[in-house]
Amino acid sequence: MKMNANPVRGTRDFLPNVVKIRDYVQNVILNTYQDYGFQRINTPILEDIHRLLSSEGGENLSLIFKVLKRGQKLNLEKENLKEIDLIDIGLRYDLTLPLSRYYANNQANIRLPFKCIQIDKVFRAERPQKGRYREFFQCDIDIIGDDSINAEIELIYTTCNALLNLGFDDFTIRINDRRILNDMICFAGFKAEDVSSVCIVFDKLDKIGVVGVKEELLSKGYEEKVVNTFIDSIENYDLSSIEDVLKVTTNKEVVEDVFKVVDVISNLSDGKFTVVYDKSLVRGMGYYTGMVFEIASNKFKSSIGGGGRYDEMIGTFMNESVPAVGFSIGFERIIDILLEAGFEAKKEKEKIALLYDKEDSMEEVIKKAEDYRKKGYQVFLFYKAKKLGKQIKNLKQDNFDYLFVYGRDEDKKAL
Amino acid sequence: MKMNANPVRGTRDFLPNVVKIRDYVQNVILNTYQDYGFQRINTPILEDIHRLLSSEGGENLSLIFKVLKRGQKLNLEKENLKEIDLIDIGLRYDLTLPLSRYYANNQANIRLPFKCIQIDKVFRAERPQKGRYREFFQCDIDIIGDDSINAEIELIYTTCNALLNLGFDDFTIRINDRRILNDMICFAGFKAEDVSSVCIVFDKLDKIGVVGVKEELLSKGYEEKVVNTFIDSIENYDLSSIEDVLKVTTNKEVVEDVFKVVDVISNLSDGKFTVVYDKSLVRGMGYYTGMVFEIASNKFKSSIGGGGRYDEMIGTFMNESVPAVGFSIGFERIIDILLEAGFEAKKEKEKIALLYDKEDSMEEVIKKAEDYRKKGYQVFLFYKAKKLGKQIKNLKQDNFDYLFVYGRDEDKKAL
Repeated sequence: MKMNANPVRGTRDFLPNVVKIRDYVQNVILNTYQDYGFQRINTPILEDIHRLLSSEGGENLSLIFKVLKRGQKLNLEKENLKEIDLIDIGLRYDLTLPLSRYYANNQANIRLPFKCIQIDKVFRAERPQKGRYREFFQCDIDIIGDDSINAEIELIYTTCNALLNLGFDDFTIRINDRRILNDMICFAGFKAEDVSSVCIVFDKLDKIGVVGVKEELLSKGYEEKVVNTFIDSIENYDLSSIEDVLKVTTNKEVVEDVFKVVDVISNLSDGKFTVVYDKSLVRGMGYYTGMVFEIASNKFKSSIGGGGRYDEMIGTFMNESVPAVGFSIGFERIIDILLEAGFEAKKEKEKIALLYDKEDSMEEVIKKAEDYRKKGYQVFLFYKAKKLGKQIKNLKQDNFDYLFVYGRDEDKKAL
Repeated sequence: MKMNANPVRGTRDFLPNVVKIRDYVQNVILNTYQDYGFQRINTPILEDIHRLLSSEGGENLSLIFKVLKRGQKLNLEKENLKEIDLIDIGLRYDLTLPLSRYYANNQANIRLPFKCIQIDKVFRAERPQKGRYREFFQCDIDIIGDDSINAEIELIYTTCNALLNLGFDDFTIRINDRRILNDMICFAGFKAEDVSSVCIVFDKLDKIGVVGVKEELLSKGYEEKVVNTFIDSIENYDLSSIEDVLKVTTNKEVVEDVFKVVDVISNLSDGKFTVVYDKSLVRGMGYYTGMVFEIASNKFKSSIGGGGRYDEMIGTFMNESVPAVGFSIGFERIIDILLEAGFEAKKEKEKIALLYDKEDSMEEVIKKAEDYRKKGYQVFLFYKAKKLGKQIKNLKQDNFDYLFVYGRDEDKKAL
């Protein structure tokens, strides 16, 4: 009758030494965001299933955990029962949809521009693999109500500083704009309605290379001439200057804005990280309307964050459209990298192990512990083991700073 | 096509000023727990549905949010479809079952006694009402692997100090022991198998009084003589001393232990709170095996926390039984009380509002902000409004300490 004790597939238990690092990293990120003028909000994990399913979350929509209706609302006798008949709630797959709903729901109490922080859990029923979890944290900042690139600059710069404060350097911010991407695709001869389908293939450039992109586009049945023109624009246009980019789009203002953001952030970077315009950056979500960005760790060759502008989403909850832009740090990836690198969180207080016998007066033992707590120590009570040598070895291993043996007439001893 | 923007029934959005208080309170509780020698762990929100349903969570089992199976595992064509065919995961309703599973799963990396902290979200599909939410935080500490009352003393004393550090006083710890309760019920003549059913009625004593308890027991069909004896024991035995309690139970050691815990905590309380033995304290969960306790705020006449010993639960995951005892602070109740009382969180840093024009160089504006951040301020960037008077009024309302107008040749000004 013994029950299995493994956590649910794709979820994890965390031991105290790992939690210490996770909490430390969250605090560094939160404190940085706060220093930079953002304010934390909270939204629920539970979201209306219809809102989730009608959001433009790309492939995330197929990864939603759906919650069964309860009580009389659940009717299993219904004919031609469909999944949607059974559910009313889902677990949020990101923090952007909940934020858009939140703004619409609380606008009476919010002054624009609204600069907010969300550090919270999201859920995706991904196939579990290294670095991919089903229950995980995201650390987002968003600016609502500012349609100028000042919002992009503030968001990106703040995010970079959170990473710098964690000891990350050697990362690259890649920036693109969905409007340039669209024009580039249409410029090659694709139809407007094919843009998102072409984007999905183009997004794989990193993984499958130019040849792979070409093959996959052809296999999808697009005209060879169109595909060749597109591939040509990827290979032969360097697109490293405004003039270059204006060969594939006529949207001068957008191109200038992107290069301005790259320029300002680069000047502010003080050489600690890199910022580039990247013509091939797509970002999966369907809701982006303007600039998109991603952070790549050069050392670990992986994306550690991303975001973009989504000026239309809030409008689905309100009678007016409200500009918005967000940037999310991939918390779990950051943690995985720090753990691999043997990172240790800073200790805030020194730790005393107070050893006592079961026969000692618990009241007096606690009073002694309180004396040390008042002096600023964390005090842990343990029964004194028969083999004190082994116990002391364990205490050192567990990073205790001092030992105090109750009943001995002496002060704490350094370990 | 505008979508509804209300959060899901029974869940809440939190504005920044409330989040500040919630985070502050969580930090005070966490820091206290850590100072008292407990270590934080994390377990997943998602739990195996069979583990949840076979746990002894009392009425909470009927409040579990159940998650639909995904992909091919979901078969709606099955004949005589039952709810359990559709689900494989649930959202945890408390932190005790996940902890028991966690210990069994991670015992190789854990030294006993294990003193741990959990501050995390739980979910219950309760009928929403004032003070009852569907998605909420609990703050738990547990001691695993210590069967002596030293564990109870440490847990209760630590919890009391978390409350004192939040500015709570005027609270009462009520302590009872399930074994005394059982004996008292059997002593009256009830059968052993009726104990839990009698407990459910007895648990309502606060709400329905002695007369109500008597009526409900009679209406359930129990023998009048037995019910009368039981009511007599409630009304006529004062049970304020060990000798008194030994009139309804022969379990001398248990009674002495309870009175010892009351005694020690009372001596340590320094008059700041009250501790009592309470013969009528039941606590709903089926998994408690020994002492149970609850904290009542005298001023707010409500329970703000509770816990007890559950020596059998971990054994359902392992081949050996492991003693355990836990105490949970009702975080949301605490927050409701603090908000009603107009509580304000301590500000850690002073806040500067830096005003600038859209035409100003964003690069230079940010550099100026950085100067102040390096001096230890939180700096918020805002566009300078046309009506500066109204903007300044808003900034004061939002608790800003200083104003700095970019481009003016002067330092920050106090607001």
